This record gives sequence, C-alpha cells and structure tokens, in this order.
Amino acid sequence: MPVTPEPQQIIALVVRQNTPGIDEPVKRLVDYLEASGYRVVFEADTAAHLGMAEVEAMSVAEIGERADYAVVMGGDGTMLGIARQLARYDIPLIGINSGRLGFITDIPIDRMVPALDEILKGGQVQAEERTLLAARVVRDGAEIYCSVAFNDVVVARGTGAGMVELRVTVDGEFMYNQRSDGLIVSTPTGSTAYALSAGGPLLHPRLQGVTLVPIAPHALSNRPIVVPEESEIVVELVAGRDISVNFDMQTFTSLQLGDRIVISRSPHTITFLHPCGWSYYHTLREKLHWNEYPTNEGKLG
Amino acid sequence: MPVTPEPQQIIALVVRQNTPGIDEPVKRLVDYLEASGYRVVFEADTAAHLGMAEVEAMSVAEIGERADYAVVMGGDGTMLGIARQLARYDIPLIGINSGRLGFITDIPIDRMVPALDEILKGGQVQAEERTLLAARVVRDGAEIYCSVAFNDVVVARGTGAGMVELRVTVDGEFMYNQRSDGLIVSTPTGSTAYALSAGGPLLHPRLQGVTLVPIAPHALSNRPIVVPEESEIVVELVAGRDISVNFDMQTFTSLQLGDRIVISRSPHTITFLHPCGWSYYHTLREKLHWNEYPTNEGKLG
Amino acid sequence: MPVTPEPQQIIALVVRQNTPGIDEPVKRLVDYLEASGYRVVFEADTAAHLGMAEVEAMSVAEIGERADYAVVMGGDGTMLGIARQLARYDIPLIGINSGRLGFITDIPIDRMVPALDEILKGGQVQAEERTLLAARVVRDGAEIYCSVAFNDVVVARGTGAGMVELRVTVDGEFMYNQRSDGLIVSTPTGSTAYALSAGGPLLHPRLQGVTLVPIAPHALSNRPIVVPEESEIVVELVAGRDISVNFDMQTFTSLQLGDRIVISRSPHTITFLHPCGWSYYHTLREKLHWNEYPTNEGKLG
Amino acid sequence: MPVTPEPQQIIALVVRQNTPGIDEPVKRLVDYLEASGYRVVFEADTAAHLGMAEVEAMSVAEIGERADYAVVMGGDGTMLGIARQLARYDIPLIGINSGRLGFITDIPIDRMVPALDEILKGGQVQAEERTLLAARVVRDGAEIYCSVAFNDVVVARGTGAGMVELRVTVDGEFMYNQRSDGLIVSTPTGSTAYALSAGGPLLHPRLQGVTLVPIAPHALSNRPIVVPEESEIVVELVAGRDISVNFDMQTFTSLQLGDRIVISRSPHTITFLHPCGWSYYHTLREKLHWNEYPTNEGKLG
Repeated sequence: MPVTPEPQQIIALVVRQNTPGIDEPVKRLVDYLEASGYRVVFEADTAAHLGMAEVEAMSVAEIGERADYAVVMGGDGTMLGIARQLARYDIPLIGINSGRLGFITDIPIDRMVPALDEILKGGQVQAEERTLLAARVVRDGAEIYCSVAFNDVVVARGTGAGMVELRVTVDGEFMYNQRSDGLIVSTPTGSTAYALSAGGPLLHPRLQGVTLVPIAPHALSNRPIVVPEESEIVVELVAGRDISVNFDMQTFTSLQLGDRIVISRSPHTITFLHPCGWSYYHTLREKLHWNEYPTNEGKLG
Repeated sequence: MPVTPEPQQIIALVVRQNTPGIDEPVKRLVDYLEASGYRVVFEADTAAHLGMAEVEAMSVAEIGERADYAVVMGGDGTMLGIARQLARYDIPLIGINSGRLGFITDIPIDRMVPALDEILKGGQVQAEERTLLAARVVRDGAEIYCSVAFNDVVVARGTGAGMVELRVTVDGEFMYNQRSDGLIVSTPTGSTAYALSAGGPLLHPRLQGVTLVPIAPHALSNRPIVVPEESEIVVELVAGRDISVNFDMQTFTSLQLGDRIVISRSPHTITFLHPCGWSYYHTLREKLHWNEYPTNEGKLG
Repeated sequence: MPVTPEPQQIIALVVRQNTPGIDEPVKRLVDYLEASGYRVVFEADTAAHLGMAEVEAMSVAEIGERADYAVVMGGDGTMLGIARQLARYDIPLIGINSGRLGFITDIPIDRMVPALDEILKGGQVQAEERTLLAARVVRDGAEIYCSVAFNDVVVARGTGAGMVELRVTVDGEFMYNQRSDGLIVSTPTGSTAYALSAGGPLLHPRLQGVTLVPIAPHALSNRPIVVPEESEIVVELVAGRDISVNFDMQTFTSLQLGDRIVISRSPHTITFLHPCGWSYYHTLREKLHWNEYPTNEGKLG
Repeated sequence: MPVTPEPQQIIALVVRQNTPGIDEPVKRLVDYLEASGYRVVFEADTAAHLGMAEVEAMSVAEIGERADYAVVMGGDGTMLGIARQLARYDIPLIGINSGRLGFITDIPIDRMVPALDEILKGGQVQAEERTLLAARVVRDGAEIYCSVAFNDVVVARGTGAGMVELRVTVDGEFMYNQRSDGLIVSTPTGSTAYALSAGGPLLHPRLQGVTLVPIAPHALSNRPIVVPEESEIVVELVAGRDISVNFDMQTFTSLQLGDRIVISRSPHTITFLHPCGWSYYHTLREKLHWNEYPTNEGKLG
C-alpha cells in the first residue's frame, strides 16, 4: 500500500572559495546526501567558484526561504559570512571545517559523514542557538545605515589618527566617555574573536550577555564589561578623526562626529547543529592550547 | 472615626565597628526614623559596640524574621558581612557609606535623610536584586561544608606552596585542568572586588552570569570566562598543597586533594534599595576613576 | 677692575598653541629670565601664534645650534614635538606644564620661577637623559624613509583592514611572526604613552631597554617583551592591507608588503632638567592614581 | 718528545630525581665524557638517588670549587635548584632536558652528545650570563635572613588573609604603597616563570633590568614596572597578616609588619653554555606556542 511521500528535504551547501582539494570531499558529501534522500543545492557563489556546471544553484535568499538545512564547508570566516545573511531566516546551520578546528565549524572533514548521519537522523543532535546584534547608525536623527553582527560591532579610528573619544550609554544611562583606539561590542560568539585579542573575557554561548571591550584604552581602569543582552547600547562619537564602524569585519561605514551607533539584540538568532558529544569547552581547550595536561584528563573522577 | 492602625514597621540598624564619630549620625538617623513612625532596632553586635544601653537589640535571625528593612552604615565590607547572613530572609537592605562611596553602600551619610525619605515613602525607589552563590565542599562523597557567597568563592594555595591544579567541570562538561595560584568564582557583585584585581571583567548586576577568573594561571590563554548563572560549577583539587577555599573572605575551609567544591546559584537573592537617580555606572565611574573628562559629560546630547 | 663679561646665555621658549590665558605667564617668565641676565628668544611658530611682534624669533635649527636651554610651556605633546626636532642638537630641555602634570612637563606653572631658579643656578638640578629610537623604512633594499622616535614607532593596520602579519627579528635572530592590529616599539619614555594603553609594562627612564608591545595580538601568549636598547629590531610586513608606520604619532608613512622597518637606538639623546626633588615615581603616582593611601605615606620609616 | 699533560678537566653531573628511564642516558653521557678524556663526578644527592655505588661523588661546594663544568639533566626546576647553590662559584652550567624543552635546560636528551661535543670543544659555544638577585630581610635594623634569587623574590599573603599593603622604595625614592596579594621582584630569567603568570612582561636575558609585578593589585593602574638592575629595591610590610617571602620558591621566611626586604643585584652571575645555533627566541616560540605559522617562517627574506 503506497504512502504519501514526505516532501523531499533540501540541503544547501556553502563552500569556501580557494580551498585546494575541496572538490573530492564536496562530491563525497553530495553523494552521501543524495543517497540519503536529500535534494542538494549549491549556494550560487559556491556553484560558480566550484565550476560545477550541472548542479542546482540557489541564491542565499532562496536558500533561506526554501532549504531545510545549510551545510557550510570552510572555516569560521565562511560560516560567519553566510550566517549573517541567513540570520533572518529560520534555517539551521551545520559547520564542517576544511582545515583546522573552528569555533563554529566544529566537524572535521573526515568525520563529516558519520556526524551528518547523527545530526540529520535526529536524536543525536545538539541544537545551539546564538544571539546576534542589530545595529543602526543614526546621524542628525536619521538612520543612515543598519546591519546585523554575529561576532561584533567595532568602532575604531584609522591608522593616521589619534585616539577617539566615545560616549557610551546603556539603556539611557551614561556609562562613560572613553578615550581609546576604539570599542568592540561583542556577542558570546564574538568573544573568542577580536574581543579576546583586545583583552575581553570568554562568554559562554548560552550566556545572555554582551561585552564591551575597549581597544587600548587611555584609562587603565576602563576594563571590559558585560551587560545583559537585552540592553540598548548607544555609542556616540565625541572626538577623533577617520573613524568607522564595522560589523563582523564584513561591512563598514565611515562615521562623523556626533553619529550614534545604536546596538541591541537582534530579533533573529542563528541555530547551529552539532553531533552528539560536541563540547564548547573541548573547542576552547583545543583552540586556546588549554589541553596541555593530557595525563590528568581522566585521572580523577 | 478611628481607623485600625497599620502595624508599625521595624527598621534594623547595622553599623560598622570602630568608626570614629559615627554616634552623631546614628543618633540623627534614629531620630529621623522614629519621627517618621518606625520602630528602630539595633543588630545585637552593633548595639554592643555602640554602647547604647537603652536601645532595643535583635539578633540577625530575629532581624531577618521580623524587620521590614535593614539599614547598614559602614563600607562594602560591613554590608557584605550582614548581607550574607540575611540572604535566607526576605528583607531589603539599604547601604549608607560612612566614608568613601562603596559599590553597595551608595548613600553618602550627609544625604541619608533625604535618601531614606525617597526610599521609604516609595515611588522613588529602585529595588535591585543581587544573585548569590551556594557552595558545598564534598569529600569522599559526603558534604563536609557549605556556605553562601555574595561576592565570590575562592580556591587558593597557601604562600609556601607551589601551584595548584584544579579540574573544573561545568554542568558535567569538563572545562579544563588549570594550574595557577587559584580560581575565583564570582557573582556580578563580586566582579568589582577580588575578581577585578585578578583580571576579570566587570559584570553588570543584572547580568545572569558567573565569572571564573584564574589567579596567575600557568597557561597564558586561561582567560576569564563568564558562564550562565544557572550553571553548576565543580572545582576539584587535583594537585597542590596547603589549599583552602573561602567564601567572601569571611569563612574558610582547608581542603584535601580530591575534594570537590560544587557551586551553583543560591535559591536566595539579596535586594538593595537605592534612591531614585542611583546609577550603577555612576558608581563605577567614581570608583574606577573613569570620570576624568568632566567637560565632555554634558557636551553632546 | 673690569672683568671680561661671560657671553650672555640664550634661552629659547616654546609655547603650546591655543592655550587660553598663557600670555601672562609667558610674560612673567620672560621678565624673570631677562632680569636674571638671559637673552630670551622665541621659537618661530611660538612667536607667530603668540602674536608678539617685537620679540626675537629663531627657527628650531637656530635654537638647536645657538641656544643654551629650551623651556617648553604646554603639555607632553608640545614637549614631544619639539624634543624630536631638537634631538640632534645638544640642548637641554625644561618642561613647564600649563595644565595638568605631564610625564615630561613636570613643573607646574605657578612654581616655574622658583623651579627655574634652582635649575639655572645649578647645584639643585637633576639632569636626566632619555633615549631615542632611529628608524628606517627599507623597500627593495633601498631606504625610503627615516625618522626618530622619542616615544614609539608604531606599525598598524587601517580601520577597514583585517589583521596584519609582521615578521620580527632582533639582532638578526627571528623572534616571531605576529598577527595583530599592529606592533608598538617603545622607549622608556613611550612606556607611559600608547604602549601602556596596549598592555605594556612601565620602563624606568634609566632602564636601557626597548619594549615591543603587540596591539590586540591574535595569539594570547604574544606578551610584551623588553629587549636591550642596543638591539636592532626589524619589523617586516608579511601580510595585511592598508598598513602604515608612525613615529610618535607625528610623522607617518604608508607601507607595502615586504617593507622592513629597521629600528635601533639613536646616537642622540634628549636631556631634561628637573628641579631638585623631582621624582619619576611621584609623577607615576599622580598620573596613574597610585597615591590613594595618603595616610600611609609617612607612617612607617 | 713528551708534552706535559694538561690536567684532566672535571665535569659534574646533576640529575633530577624520580625520572624513569634516566639511567640509560646518564650512562651514555658518562661513557661519552670519559671517552672524551674528562673525569666525571656526580653531585652527592644525584649519586645517592641514582644508586650508582662505584661512581665518584662530590658535594655542591666541592663541585663549585673543583669542577670545570656542571651538566644538569632534568627540567628548569632542577637547574634552578642547583644554579642557586653554585652561583657563588665560577662554574658554567649546561642544561639537558629529560622531557620537554625548558627555558634554561635547552638541549634535548637525544641531542646531548653532539651538543656537548660542540660546547666542550669550544668555538661552537654560546656563553650566556644571567643575573641573580641578593635579598636581605631586615627586622628592627638587624638582618634576620638573606638569600639569593635566580628567578624571583616573592612577598605574598597566606590564603586565609586579606590583602597586604607593601611600601616600595627604589634607590631611596618612594615608589608606591601597594595593596595586593603580593609582589614579585623578578630577574629576566624569572620573567618567564611566576612573573609571567601574574601579568609581567618578558625580559630578554641580556636586558639589565628587574621587573616588579604586583599580584592581583587592588589599584588597576598598578602595572608591572621594569627598573635598572643596579637599583636597590626595598619592600616594607605596612599591613596584612600571614605574610612570607620566598626566594625562587625554594626557601621561605615568615615576615612581620615593619620588616623590610632589601633586594639588589647579586655580585655573582650564572653562566649557561649553549650549543651554537641556540636561540632564546626559539625557546620562547616553542614554550609560548608562538610558532603557529610555520608556512611563513621562510617565506620572506
């Protein structure tokens, strides 16, 4: 007795450009997915740079609207770029690193088939939701730019300019006037990126917080501060030259004195799927060389 | 026509010992409170050291059970000491600093009467809830000690001993084996205390997070990390000598290798009452010398 | 019996522009110096912006060659600007701060006459010699730029660019490839300036060392390092975009990949004269808010 | 024609205790040295724990007076312990690491024979001189203790005590009153040890400087400072309980309030011999995980 077939699920592939030797694993992945009954589509740029003539391609918007999963092969940068664009859609992301372990591309390429097996067949999957920031640049009362940030919103001076002075308010309360090279406003995801280099703390991905990390602050007591993620943070340019704001180092806008950058939690989130057994701390240990004491790992308890 | 009188509200006073010249402001405070219709009682130790024979005294437990408010005159240390003891009761605290501005004793003594007026008559009050940690020390499966911490739980080596090695797990997940002088597990309240000296970030009091700050860690990448406050943090002693744990630097216990300190959010919280206009950031600016640029304070919008 | 008159000593004045109310103290200073038998000349720019028509003006080069002392009124920035230019001459500098205490402009304006009295009449003077760096930019084997630095040589990326990668060698030995926002190579004098904001240590002015302070380094273990001042430090651009080098934030040059900045101790030094009783540590305490515990200052020994 | 024989040179061996499998390399080393014409003696403790009945043993003092070289097999701790004792003699040290690369035990065990060949036959040797500190504890005007430090002199509080307050003077000039967990006074050698964990800078071994690194300082601006090595540093105990001073974590003394620790450069130095090609920066890169970018190492010039 025939059953009404479930509509075929669509999996979109996004692959980093200029990755020597990536064709073979991509083919292997496609074969596995098609054999498992999925319809595989390629993100348009990926299709173009892979030079795969006959594959089905979709724009990012189409992927967002129609695909069930997006699988990203590359590094954290590749994932960051596509996650920002897919944030407004409700599509979970799976990250496969083509080289070294990434913070958000956690599945090694030689483990991808069993890992996807665990994830896609469910039961053995960890879904993890990550916060984004929404930022608007306001000049003379009018919004002149807006963007989302998955890692961070960074206000910074140019090389040839001295310090900036930024006036920061949080939920309408004056925090400080800060003189520095700039200010990083970072999500937990971004806390392992630029914010960490600038001296910020690590934030667990489930922490509902946003960190403000000054870059080379003039006042030594201008330490990183973590505020609740529902805060509205306003950064206003008081003094300085050649200042700009960037969002995940992906989009940029030049600023003028008096401009305000208004930052709050985005209504959207990003969902990552990990295979069972994935551990955020394991990734930290690997990436930050914490795992120096292997002999102790299982010694006690 | 007579109305049934509302039962008289009780206000308990806690005053720091050895504060020269405190008698006059205490008397002024009592006069104001009694004139406003409150019944004023003194915490037993306070009554003893103030040498006020005829005043009514209550133990901390009685205050917790019967008083409506506790007013603390002194510094942050005084507040910390009493807040820890009153945490299990549901009594709001009001902090008056007898000297320099404190993080949690925010009302200057010469502003106390108008500030209390605003607070006690309501409408102009900011109630602020602070998280506590509950910690248990487990040895060979049995709990040998437990305490609460308002600022921090600190595991540290003695002076004559080398590094400790601590195995930290969070919610059952292995975080790291850390070699250091010790580890500070701090609430947002404690983030301006010892954790700050050891390089930790500032945490806004409303942030639902707890920070782990290593003290002089052997691995340079062992950076402070902030985890959700609902996490269960287990610190286990792997190696080292002469190790102890303290809670707010108020209670101490010596530890043995293999001991585990299990730390989670306390079911209790502490409520501070501030007069309207109180600002956490203002306190930070004052205490951390951030307010260096007064000319800019009101310059832009 | 007539004596052969000693040739009249020349004192050059350098005054910061745009300092409201500076005319009166300048006049007072000139009167005092002329009354003491000195010939007073104004640095040409100073003469122009002060609008003093009838005073004698000299170029910086003339001052370097002919004057006996240069007195600088302004802040550390004013002193830095003129010290760089006078470095090749053998003329001691005296710094008077027109506002807040400076690290290298240590005499308050209301103490300038007695302080100069002590200094110029000798015996009560502390002469302090400060090191400079000499830097050359080499492209394809040819020197395309050279400059001195009194504070620091800073190689840094532009706002719109990602990390730079710098290859650093010291005395021909490979130190590291560093990924960061940039690198600060600082003298002891510069150790209280930008290098301090970026996390560098304080270096006592008499320490014969140069510090390399990475700006927001990618590797957390890329800590500041202090090398002997006789070292030759070569910074080579390996990767990055929009990179430039600046010298004391006063002169700038754009760089290309492959460029090398070769940094060594300058053959010149700068001599500051301080009144007796001047203390470097006193200045640190004041500038860095160390002097918080006045009651202890004289308590013990 | 007979020549007068040169007197046989003596090489002393110091070997870390409890090093499984060390007997074979020790035997190999002895065979090589004896075959090369040296007389090999064992440091007395080493002879005892190695259980080598028939070997010739010498006390440390005898080694200092009579041996031509000391070869140390173990880790940096082993070298530190013996170097402190041999500092007063003029005997060069050679460090062989039995496990991981050390900062001062730089020759891997499987390279020991060719490395010693290069060193002992001269011409291919790098001699490196390291500074030591001499410290005296003065109570009520009388010296109650003295010691040398190869790494550091550390004044610190016990676990159960609050902050210490230390009054620091340098060359008779008041530097600061510091509230903290303690203070590390470190040589360049010690700058890669405890001082680094506490946030201090790296100091090149040839830098003639000493660094003062506060441990968890109360004032955020109490940053590490490097002073010339000829400075006399006096640390006086102003406040605190349960304070002690240690020298290289090898010797300890309890302190009382009012005690002064007087620290200056030792008249002695320690000489390490390295094979040609040894590089301090190479060791830093290895130990601090700087060498992450191997592909760039030889890419440019």
